[in-house]
Amino acid sequence: MSVRAEVHFIGVVMKTSEQQAEVQVFPEFFAGLKQITRFSHLIILYWMHLRDSKKERKTLLVFPKKHAVNIETGVFACRSPSRPNPIGMCVVELMKIEECVLTVKGLDALSASPIVDIKPYLPKADCVPNARVPEWTTYDPAI
Amino acid sequence: MSVRAEVHFIGVVMKTSEQQAEVQVFPEFFAGLKQITRFSHLIILYWMHLRDSKKERKTLLVFPKKHAVNIETGVFACRSPSRPNPIGMCVVELMKIEECVLTVKGLDALSASPIVDIKPYLPKADCVPNARVPEWTTYDPAI
Repeated sequence: MSVRAEVHFIGVVMKTSEQQAEVQVFPEFFAGLKQITRFSHLIILYWMHLRDSKKERKTLLVFPKKHAVNIETGVFACRSPSRPNPIGMCVVELMKIEECVLTVKGLDALSASPIVDIKPYLPKADCVPNARVPEWTTYDPAI
Repeated sequence: MSVRAEVHFIGVVMKTSEQQAEVQVFPEFFAGLKQITRFSHLIILYWMHLRDSKKERKTLLVFPKKHAVNIETGVFACRSPSRPNPIGMCVVELMKIEECVLTVKGLDALSASPIVDIKPYLPKADCVPNARVPEWTTYDPAI
C-alpha cells in the first residue's frame, strides 16, 4: 500500500469575518457545483496551510483548551489544527452563490486556506444529536 | 499559492462488514488516539484509493441515484466517490478500541482504504438536524 497521496486544491478561502466567509471555487471545477443550492448546509474540507510543516504534522498530543482545562489529548480526539494531515472540516450554512464564489456562515478557516473538498450535508448520515462528548469540549473558550 | 499538497496515511481499513468495520491506526500514530474513548462518535476521513485515477479525479458531473432518478449533479453536491480529491467522510460510532484497532459502526469504506484523519464528533459544531436537502437524497437506493 502506498503511504502517501496528493491532494489538488479546488478553491481558496477569499475572506473571512466573524459573520461569514467567501470561498472561491477555481473556474475549472465550477461544473462540480451543479445543484449545490438545493442544500442549505455543506461540509467544507480545507487545508490548514499554516500548519503544513514537519513539526506540526508530527504533533500527536496537545492541550486543546489549556486556558480552561489541562487535559493532554491525542490529535485524533480533538480538532487541533496541528495533526498529521492539516485538513480542517467545518459544517457551514450556504448563504449565497455567485459564479464561483460561495458565501457561507460558520467556516472556521483562515483567509487563503486552500479548499480540498465540498460535500453536501445530509442530516440522515451526518447528524448525531446525542453523541457523547467529554465535558471539557463544552467549556466556553473565553473562560 | 501552491496548488497541491501531500497527505500521509495514518491507518487503513482492515475489514468491513454490514455491521461494523475495523480501522487500524499505524503504530507511529498511536499516541494521537489518547482520550478518544471519551467520544461516542468519530468523523473518519479516508482515501477512496480505487478512485484515485486521472479520469475519476476529472469527473465533475454524475448521476448519483440513476436507478431511481435522473438528475445530473455536481460532485460537490453529492457524495460520489469520483471527485477531484477522493476523500470519503463518514460519521461512525466507536464500538471498541484495542491497541491500534478501532471497531466502528457506520463506515462506508472499502477494505484496504487508507485513513487520512480521525476527528471527534462534536454535536455542537457538526449536527444540523434541520438542514435542507433535495428530495432525491432521501430515496431508498434499493428502489
